Amino acid sequence: MNIYDVSERAGVSIATVSRVINGNSNVSEKTRNKVIDVMKEIGYTPNVFARGLGLNTMSTIGIMCTDSSDLYLANAVYYLERELRANGYDSILCCTGTKSETKKKYFELLMSKRVDAIILIGSKFLSTIAAENAYIIEAAKKLPIMLVNGYLEGDNIYSALCDDETAVFTATDALIKSGRKDIVYLYTSTSYSGMRKLEGYRKAHFLHNIPLNPERIHLCGKNIANSRDFLNELYDKGSRFDAIVTSDDTLAVGALKFAYDKGVSVPSELNIIGYNNSILSNCTAPELTSIDTKLESLCVTTINTLMGIFNGEDVPSKINISADIIKRNTTNF
Amino acid sequence: MNIYDVSERAGVSIATVSRVINGNSNVSEKTRNKVIDVMKEIGYTPNVFARGLGLNTMSTIGIMCTDSSDLYLANAVYYLERELRANGYDSILCCTGTKSETKKKYFELLMSKRVDAIILIGSKFLSTIAAENAYIIEAAKKLPIMLVNGYLEGDNIYSALCDDETAVFTATDALIKSGRKDIVYLYTSTSYSGMRKLEGYRKAHFLHNIPLNPERIHLCGKNIANSRDFLNELYDKGSRFDAIVTSDDTLAVGALKFAYDKGVSVPSELNIIGYNNSILSNCTAPELTSIDTKLESLCVTTINTLMGIFNGEDVPSKINISADIIKRNTTNF
Repeated sequence: MNIYDVSERAGVSIATVSRVINGNSNVSEKTRNKVIDVMKEIGYTPNVFARGLGLNTMSTIGIMCTDSSDLYLANAVYYLERELRANGYDSILCCTGTKSETKKKYFELLMSKRVDAIILIGSKFLSTIAAENAYIIEAAKKLPIMLVNGYLEGDNIYSALCDDETAVFTATDALIKSGRKDIVYLYTSTSYSGMRKLEGYRKAHFLHNIPLNPERIHLCGKNIANSRDFLNELYDKGSRFDAIVTSDDTLAVGALKFAYDKGVSVPSELNIIGYNNSILSNCTAPELTSIDTKLESLCVTTINTLMGIFNGEDVPSKINISADIIKRNTTNF
Repeated sequence: MNIYDVSERAGVSIATVSRVINGNSNVSEKTRNKVIDVMKEIGYTPNVFARGLGLNTMSTIGIMCTDSSDLYLANAVYYLERELRANGYDSILCCTGTKSETKKKYFELLMSKRVDAIILIGSKFLSTIAAENAYIIEAAKKLPIMLVNGYLEGDNIYSALCDDETAVFTATDALIKSGRKDIVYLYTSTSYSGMRKLEGYRKAHFLHNIPLNPERIHLCGKNIANSRDFLNELYDKGSRFDAIVTSDDTLAVGALKFAYDKGVSVPSELNIIGYNNSILSNCTAPELTSIDTKLESLCVTTINTLMGIFNGEDVPSKINISADIIKRNTTNF
């Protein structure tokens, strides 16, 4: 038995149940009594009390991501679990792959396991087709849905987002201001976050009156060989460029390999900027300048928001966090 | 309701229940009838049938690891989930951290969520103190426990292991045969697997009558800075060495950074060997020679064994898989 069983049977929102549990005065006497009656009836003991009494309520948060072997997602899982544990919550994780039907099936699995909230990591978890996200909006009637760097409009859905557009804009703008003009953009996803990054690249060009060159904008798989091969081919076709901005460090590593392949000097002839400031950016020589997307902050914020919801507090449904550029040795601005 | 509820109530082993479900003839008529009666009584529909009938049995495998942000563990999770999904099973993952009490708590959480088996990844999950693993041996009475590259003696506990000892022995032996004599060994863990690796390093020295030098054997945290700093200090104290073997690619990346710091040429003056053949070994320049621990094979084998158990087959309780050395540019043997 779970807070959403109480909410359903009492015919009130989860926030109202939370307010009653936490003794918040902003609930009518009648509603309070109804909620307490339902709690007694179904034998529900709220976690905050239960923990004080040393009872084992098995309160658990569900976490979902598409692929645990992705560095960004794996680190997000690590931070989320650390924060949940610090707040006395257990968590279970489902890795769903990218197919829509499998995501939905795993979502139902977590619901059936009686989790108290579901956290979805990455904007890739959401479909770009609105109808395919309907099950999430429906589920949010029963329990809070938390999105880490993803955005979906709906009641009881909460987002903590990195400002990816500004991050790529700032990086591209800095390159242009330092004299670079022919900037390749390599990206891996057309998700919400993927589109925001591309928009940042576009805006910086627009602002500086530099036309976009479609052959320099390339969507490719998230691995080293893909970006390396694409850049070698582009170069062999006679195209010349003086900077590469990427949506993931993996692609930036491939860009460095391309530079070795062709004897192009980094950073003097070619600037390279990675994304996510992962361990890969420390492994290369020269080390990669990369955009720190504040993943730890996003995860801490998500759990703080969730704890706020459980405590019946008013919490914002969307929080934006700014990225930073970590300057290492593949740029000279 | 779960296969182990049937096993418990019928007073027979899980293997026997599996045999009944799969129509294996190696079960007495009396036992078969008892099992079928219990299944009817508690309304249990075995997965293999249920799937054929399109029923949703919510059959789920629990996976546990200490830290999802570790590359090796994250990749193991990926392979295990892929194989489980291919066999029609869902999975839920718990990341426990390294504290013994938390591991035990999460173990109970997975049991309470009615999983059909539990997979533990990495020998670090197990305690080196026998008494601290008693809860696992106890749990194995109720459901199969699968260990990926970990080993624990007990009924209904199954291990798929990489031969870490031979892997490090072969690497060290190859270095010695190619003329290297002063070989540093850097490692991150004193787990079962960690001790086997160290033993491989020791054996190669023993075989070639080279005495071990304790100052060259160093236990350090799994990060780049730790190995880099240790090696710089060792070098500054006047120690000279011509090869470095590591128990993880992260430490080998740190070893390469040390070589740049001191202007030591790799591989002519110094050979470096990584471990796990992770994405990091492709990011460095020169790229790292690394030991491929066949993680994918270990995971596939684990799931095949598990499916064998569910089908009532006789399966081996311990499978060893050999590692390979992937030669890249930090060695010249």
